[in-house]
Amino acid sequence: MSSILATIGSNIKFHRKKLRLSQEQLADLADLHRTYVGSVERGERNISALNIEKLAAVLGVEPAKLLESKPNQIDDK
Amino acid sequence: MSSILATIGSNIKFHRKKLRLSQEQLADLADLHRTYVGSVERGERNISALNIEKLAAVLGVEPAKLLESKPNQIDDK
Repeated sequence: MSSILATIGSNIKFHRKKLRLSQEQLADLADLHRTYVGSVERGERNISALNIEKLAAVLGVEPAKLLESKPNQIDDK
Repeated sequence: MSSILATIGSNIKFHRKKLRLSQEQLADLADLHRTYVGSVERGERNISALNIEKLAAVLGVEPAKLLESKPNQIDDK
């Protein structure tokens, strides 16, 4: 798995859980499919810039934030 | 044109010029096609996370940096 895809996936999951959204709710709000959001969170999809932008908008963060590796971030399973 | 694609394109161009690389040199170093890099710089392509990572590695910046909007950045045509 690419480290950038894993980083993006983990950041999306982190911010989604912070907002207490399910994958399905996030997917609906971002106009994406639930299974797609799941695979992005697992770092399995080479997500595009436009989908990063869509998810960031729903999560209320700057798109760049979703690419930042945060070594101290708690891995919230 | 999406603002995120324009931002990424402008950031790539900015860092490429800082390193005095041609589009062709950047493309070769990142193992991408020159015309692809040109269209990304013009904000015409929905670039993927893995290609953002490849270009950032050659440009010597964190991938997240390429998504940041910098209102004060001089538009270096």
